[in-house]
Amino acid sequence: MKKSLIALAVLATAGVASAQSSVTLFGIVDATLAFGKGSGVGSSNKTALTNSGYNSSRLGFRGTEDLGGGMSASFWLEAGLANDDGQGAGTSANNQTAAALPFNPVTGANATARAGQQGLTFNRRSTVSLAGNFGEVRLGRDYTPQFWNLTVFDPFGTNGVGTTQTLSGINGANLGGPTTVRASNSMGYFLPKNLGGFYGQVQYYLGENIKNGAATEKDGTGAGVRVGYAAGPINAALAFSSTKYAAGNIKTTNLGGQYDLGVAKLMAHYNRDRVSGGATGKGYLLGGLIPMGAGEIRVAYSTYKVDVAGTPKSSKFALGYVHNLSKRTALYTTFARVGNKGGAFSPLNGAATAPNNSSTGYDFGIRHSF
Amino acid sequence: MKKSLIALAVLATAGVASAQSSVTLFGIVDATLAFGKGSGVGSSNKTALTNSGYNSSRLGFRGTEDLGGGMSASFWLEAGLANDDGQGAGTSANNQTAAALPFNPVTGANATARAGQQGLTFNRRSTVSLAGNFGEVRLGRDYTPQFWNLTVFDPFGTNGVGTTQTLSGINGANLGGPTTVRASNSMGYFLPKNLGGFYGQVQYYLGENIKNGAATEKDGTGAGVRVGYAAGPINAALAFSSTKYAAGNIKTTNLGGQYDLGVAKLMAHYNRDRVSGGATGKGYLLGGLIPMGAGEIRVAYSTYKVDVAGTPKSSKFALGYVHNLSKRTALYTTFARVGNKGGAFSPLNGAATAPNNSSTGYDFGIRHSF
Amino acid sequence: MKKSLIALAVLATAGVASAQSSVTLFGIVDATLAFGKGSGVGSSNKTALTNSGYNSSRLGFRGTEDLGGGMSASFWLEAGLANDDGQGAGTSANNQTAAALPFNPVTGANATARAGQQGLTFNRRSTVSLAGNFGEVRLGRDYTPQFWNLTVFDPFGTNGVGTTQTLSGINGANLGGPTTVRASNSMGYFLPKNLGGFYGQVQYYLGENIKNGAATEKDGTGAGVRVGYAAGPINAALAFSSTKYAAGNIKTTNLGGQYDLGVAKLMAHYNRDRVSGGATGKGYLLGGLIPMGAGEIRVAYSTYKVDVAGTPKSSKFALGYVHNLSKRTALYTTFARVGNKGGAFSPLNGAATAPNNSSTGYDFGIRHSF
Repeated sequence: MKKSLIALAVLATAGVASAQSSVTLFGIVDATLAFGKGSGVGSSNKTALTNSGYNSSRLGFRGTEDLGGGMSASFWLEAGLANDDGQGAGTSANNQTAAALPFNPVTGANATARAGQQGLTFNRRSTVSLAGNFGEVRLGRDYTPQFWNLTVFDPFGTNGVGTTQTLSGINGANLGGPTTVRASNSMGYFLPKNLGGFYGQVQYYLGENIKNGAATEKDGTGAGVRVGYAAGPINAALAFSSTKYAAGNIKTTNLGGQYDLGVAKLMAHYNRDRVSGGATGKGYLLGGLIPMGAGEIRVAYSTYKVDVAGTPKSSKFALGYVHNLSKRTALYTTFARVGNKGGAFSPLNGAATAPNNSSTGYDFGIRHSF
Repeated sequence: MKKSLIALAVLATAGVASAQSSVTLFGIVDATLAFGKGSGVGSSNKTALTNSGYNSSRLGFRGTEDLGGGMSASFWLEAGLANDDGQGAGTSANNQTAAALPFNPVTGANATARAGQQGLTFNRRSTVSLAGNFGEVRLGRDYTPQFWNLTVFDPFGTNGVGTTQTLSGINGANLGGPTTVRASNSMGYFLPKNLGGFYGQVQYYLGENIKNGAATEKDGTGAGVRVGYAAGPINAALAFSSTKYAAGNIKTTNLGGQYDLGVAKLMAHYNRDRVSGGATGKGYLLGGLIPMGAGEIRVAYSTYKVDVAGTPKSSKFALGYVHNLSKRTALYTTFARVGNKGGAFSPLNGAATAPNNSSTGYDFGIRHSF
Repeated sequence: MKKSLIALAVLATAGVASAQSSVTLFGIVDATLAFGKGSGVGSSNKTALTNSGYNSSRLGFRGTEDLGGGMSASFWLEAGLANDDGQGAGTSANNQTAAALPFNPVTGANATARAGQQGLTFNRRSTVSLAGNFGEVRLGRDYTPQFWNLTVFDPFGTNGVGTTQTLSGINGANLGGPTTVRASNSMGYFLPKNLGGFYGQVQYYLGENIKNGAATEKDGTGAGVRVGYAAGPINAALAFSSTKYAAGNIKTTNLGGQYDLGVAKLMAHYNRDRVSGGATGKGYLLGGLIPMGAGEIRVAYSTYKVDVAGTPKSSKFALGYVHNLSKRTALYTTFARVGNKGGAFSPLNGAATAPNNSSTGYDFGIRHSF
């Protein structure tokens, strides 16, 4: 997430006193050679040149305008980027599960999207803000409060084969639903930064269905809140969210923290996703970052289980090393192994593994930011 | 449309004398909290965080190269932006109605596009130009001549809930067809700017169907012309266009004008869309802009009717206020009410309203340009 | 391919010694009025305002970071651009033929993609590199080694109506398959630039199918190599590639060269595409570039034939002129005529021509780069 910023001088506009305005073009291109291995009956392996093994690849534009009197306006447009093949990434217009593509009577299955046609969208963040002494009001598509504890307190930053199992969940997803990471149509408020280490945010987001009395009319509408404290070696936060779906409202609660010992930064978090009238998923992570000269060792153990028949559970051990060639460019490698129980078959790096069988994965990559 | 420009210095290229070349990155991020209400049997309401309530959200790149001798070359690439969810906007490749998506035999209906997957296209404008004392020749996708009078002489600039009904038409569209606002594959010519207040443009655009004798082979091919005069407090213009479709050629005629009294700028326009062998739609707008300190009051009455059975007619009253925090950043609100007659059921802000019932809408938003 | 670069000053980042870093925004907007004529029974003509008649339209971002010690990291993101209508261009995620869109039981045919919805992808190039005295390692989507001889040694640079028939092939394509021009998921190595005129590259690319024993599991995986020598008036190179497909592995071999006489630059190349257990396609080009004041005459004869029943063969004669208004802006025109034998019906500029009938085409355009 280190971004080498490019500042573009703004043309002086007659009558505008604000001299501190700027627009920044920024991005990350992270390429990963990824190997995934499954085990058991029907398992398969995969080798791919993929992306975002260390940091999420992206291309963005952002800027701030000083409005005077401590006020500022700003925008942030950030697109996900599959730099292995040049595609962008889709977004969600309504915080709901995407509709199935048309049924194909010839193959007897729903059609799949055509590979290679996804254009750039600002799926990662697309916001406009007003900020001042009161804090910041932010409108648009943004991360949800319930996501931050999973990524900030994961040594692997929820990227690559080492991604915390509390996000990866069971067999490909946790129970947090479409707003686990981001929400569209959101209105957020952030506390000001000068509260002696305390920080916090609330967010409300809209599913934007027509209000016609249907059971699903509030699907995708929800809210989240996160509060934390960071000072010296300590950072800790608590978050809660609730999102409405006719198929079962989803409530997520999580908390996380880190302590910087100097020789290592220890991290832990706990997450619970509860579907009304349905299942509950729970998990936690324990890990840390260990500085090593120009690099860093990353290690984590994380687990997630769901209280349905058999209580499927997946647990991951991940170990990695990042070598910084500069502040902008790094080489990295990660090894991970996920064990499955209770019928779980969580895979790594695109492999397929049999129920109750393990999967292993390796990442080798380069991250370049600008 | 105020654009705080960012000028990027062009590297001196040996042997090129033109020192005034530049490339500009520009955009608008406009977020709108929009409420729509319907009335009557089967009506519904909608609340959304949407975009472009005051100015159309966009991201663009443009530049000009001085060729010497009064000549210049330039390009303009401008993408529409749904900053509420991060999507781009589609364009039209052929100035024709988009084909229906595949029929889904399971649901018995045509499939809908997948929400959230529309990537950025330069749908708003995508042109290359040569200009000189003779005027400007412009090639690519651009606004049509027949659009300008509707937006320039609308106090709401054809954005947000206040958009003139001459553009919104009946039940969602006027009769102007796919080239009402823009055309792809166009060749345009603009008069030079020093004609004592007179201005004008002509445009020819291609549907690009194969010439095989089919009735539809010229679908989407057409031309438009616009001439006007602007001097002191006066600005007035007249436009005409004709576009070929086997289902009925479309001819649009409109004229508009404004007079700046100082305490207020009065605006009016008239528009007629005639489909050969089909219906004719007619409408007009009366409105104005009233400066108020750092802001502006906007007000308009507009109407559109179509001469089919019942003569459906929709009439809108809109009132709004824009408060400028700076030249680049503004807060705004708009109220609008549309009345329907003759079977019309034109809605506002995504609501649904019953035939002959009214719909009301509110916008609250922020516009930030860069 | 002349790119007027825009250099953006990078903010000094504390602790980073590299002062030569830069990010460049670049692009080409090339608009072409293109006419195509067919002949014979069922033939048709086409007129279009299209793009890339001289150089491929594009929008890109690239940059280099000096890592010290002769090392550098760099990225290159380049999107294709249909500036006639504002669309981007699709890419390939897996170096394989795109799946058919869903079958439409109403029309009895597979559905076509919706015109106008293709967003920007970095389909032209999307790479991250590490370079040093050892050469360059490049990861991502890039040109294949087997493409370069076709375009470098084509006076028309594989753009517009004059494009060499060795690339256009028979009835719309040569037999080189999905990686004829570019490959996704590639790992490439380039020799350093100081080898006394010798240059070379190797590339390995992945189809990224799951390894489950299916016959198609290696589809889209392949490799290519190219070596050449350029010094004084001479440039010549040889390339070979092999890509795996269950339907028949594809092996491409080509070589090309040019000699600069001063009054003219002569060019020639030969290309062979061999499908294992299938057909072989062969072709060659002879042509040249003749400087004329501020412009250049371009001329080429190229041909391609396939050894299936009838031995279909298409041969093209192309003649063009480019007039440079500046280093960035040029006007151009090209005439081409393709003759067909053995059942071939290769068309030009979107026309349709009958088997064994010729097709002619004209381009008139403007190329503006930035």
